[in-house]
Amino acid sequence: MTIAAALAELPTPCLVLDEARMRANIARLNAHLAPLNVTLRPHLKTLKSVEAARQVLKGGNGPATVSTLKEAEVFAQAGVKDIIYAVGIAPQKLPRVQVLRGAGCDLAVVLDTRAQAEAVAEASRASGEAIPALIEIDCDAHRAGLKPDDAEIVAIGRILVDGGAELRGVLTHSGGSYGAVGAEALADFAEQERAAIVAAAQTLRDAGLPCPVVSVGSTPTAHFARDLTGVTEVRAGVYVAQDLVMAGIGVCKPEDIALSVLGTVIGHQHERGWILVDAGWMAMSRDRGTASQSVDQGYGMVCDVEGNVIPDLIMVAANQEHGIIGLRPGSTATLPELAVGEKLRILPNHACATATEHDGYEVIPANGSTRLAHWPRFRGW
Amino acid sequence: MTIAAALAELPTPCLVLDEARMRANIARLNAHLAPLNVTLRPHLKTLKSVEAARQVLKGGNGPATVSTLKEAEVFAQAGVKDIIYAVGIAPQKLPRVQVLRGAGCDLAVVLDTRAQAEAVAEASRASGEAIPALIEIDCDAHRAGLKPDDAEIVAIGRILVDGGAELRGVLTHSGGSYGAVGAEALADFAEQERAAIVAAAQTLRDAGLPCPVVSVGSTPTAHFARDLTGVTEVRAGVYVAQDLVMAGIGVCKPEDIALSVLGTVIGHQHERGWILVDAGWMAMSRDRGTASQSVDQGYGMVCDVEGNVIPDLIMVAANQEHGIIGLRPGSTATLPELAVGEKLRILPNHACATATEHDGYEVIPANGSTRLAHWPRFRGW
Repeated sequence: MTIAAALAELPTPCLVLDEARMRANIARLNAHLAPLNVTLRPHLKTLKSVEAARQVLKGGNGPATVSTLKEAEVFAQAGVKDIIYAVGIAPQKLPRVQVLRGAGCDLAVVLDTRAQAEAVAEASRASGEAIPALIEIDCDAHRAGLKPDDAEIVAIGRILVDGGAELRGVLTHSGGSYGAVGAEALADFAEQERAAIVAAAQTLRDAGLPCPVVSVGSTPTAHFARDLTGVTEVRAGVYVAQDLVMAGIGVCKPEDIALSVLGTVIGHQHERGWILVDAGWMAMSRDRGTASQSVDQGYGMVCDVEGNVIPDLIMVAANQEHGIIGLRPGSTATLPELAVGEKLRILPNHACATATEHDGYEVIPANGSTRLAHWPRFRGW
Repeated sequence: MTIAAALAELPTPCLVLDEARMRANIARLNAHLAPLNVTLRPHLKTLKSVEAARQVLKGGNGPATVSTLKEAEVFAQAGVKDIIYAVGIAPQKLPRVQVLRGAGCDLAVVLDTRAQAEAVAEASRASGEAIPALIEIDCDAHRAGLKPDDAEIVAIGRILVDGGAELRGVLTHSGGSYGAVGAEALADFAEQERAAIVAAAQTLRDAGLPCPVVSVGSTPTAHFARDLTGVTEVRAGVYVAQDLVMAGIGVCKPEDIALSVLGTVIGHQHERGWILVDAGWMAMSRDRGTASQSVDQGYGMVCDVEGNVIPDLIMVAANQEHGIIGLRPGSTATLPELAVGEKLRILPNHACATATEHDGYEVIPANGSTRLAHWPRFRGW
């Protein structure tokens, strides 16, 4: 049996993971960071798969980053021992953090307000066990965090230290890098991210406070950083899968994308040049991340069942369970003949958003076997 | 305990369903359609909940519409006996259709190509049991279906009848009505939908073919249809929950929306007028359906924990697990003071897309009890 034949037997739509591409993506970032003298702390929010985490984490047990406490709980249960929950902590969530820490997982939280620091300190005192916290720094006016020279950094650091918590360090995320294009611009964002976090660490140290961890990260900056002096660790997540948004800014090529949605042709509108498939936005997600890029990929770039890109063919529109496939606007290519029942694979705009629409991965094994594996995926909070 | 106190105990983000609003939405459409002499065949794709289906379906067992075979399987298992799977059938899915029919559910399929009709006829002959099929009609150049006067309608009808399948009728969906605004424009779309399907039914009957079912439907047209002569049934789905897209075109008011995402404040960017919550696009979905409407609601309209809209407050941007709340652009309102730990409820752009990000509903009971119920939700194909 061929891979195409094995895929053709799957009910559609479903989510396909090309393990060889995933491994190449993992190896690429490991190789880039090796000479930069930093630890990679992969973000596990994209695939939310224990099987994938075992491949991406050194020794299978960390360090790791997560975006939800559910992720922390599942990965801790699977043996991951060193986790940062990289979304500002809500005080009500601290009991769950403490349960995980009590079970032997070194789970650290992130915060940027006095209210959060006081809650973390209070929970630490109440339990007699210091909860480690990183102060979030804003490097590009993108989301959360304090500016690197904000006096609040020291105030919050003191609340943690004096209150019985642990000041683990500082953390930032260059979300703004997703809007940059090309190696030079991405390297500039990486340097901006580095400079901000190093300055914030200095702010703490100048005040006599500890700052052992200096954490940066985003997939674009991780791949294009040239110097990470002063940084101790780098976080990145979507690089494991890659996607069309990353391809659009030059982080990868479409051929690197490890995830695709398998769909079946269910009809045509010949006059309009449309091929209808049974993979709509429920399978692709509503993410239109390439809409603002120089090349809009619609709801995804279309490949044949073996994963080869079909020139200029994209999902031009999507309803809940219908995908409308057509030529890219302005294309002079010929619409391929695709009969009812034929299979297609669609590369996603945004791997994190597409993956969460599915409960598992149909895995094309890296070892060349044509026997597909199935990796479950979890979600929720 | 109050509802606000009961909600405050929930882990966030989570999905809240206001049962009283849901019941009012159900009653409203039932009342509108009662004098129009049609059967309502609710589409169960929005909530994907057996508990909700029992309230929306007459007698709890049908008729119903679904968008996936998984929905058909779950609802058939729960006792629903009359279902249309309203997405063009892929031939590979026919064995699952036959299993459900064999178990006593009158499941009908939809198609618009000879290839599909031949596959349905062949499967019918092979099993000795006629599979009922409706021919999909295109009323507004929106998606799938044949034009009402297309000769293919008769050709496909004959393939079904002569081949041993059952020609159950014709079906159309006015997806284009989502782009109309106001009662007059929506009534025009309803009439366009009616005229197309009645013409298609006549095409079949003129050829001596049967057409017992004449099915139309979309939430906008269902609410604004004034005359449904010649139509036997109306399908609608999102009306049960309603959402901001429906409010934006005048189908409902924001106060009718039964679904909201509960989130917790986790920080601020005071200089930028931002309140950060732990509900990002993973909880809201990436649906930006109001972006093309006259009022862009961002990722959702913000309410207090009791569900009262806070003037001009919307989710202006979203990352995976961060929602950025701020005033609507151009607003002169004052940003409310919301401390870390406070709860908010966010009304969704698109109920179907938001609901699928969650595995269940935290239900505020219609009976006035402050004891929340939990209704599970399923998904997948």
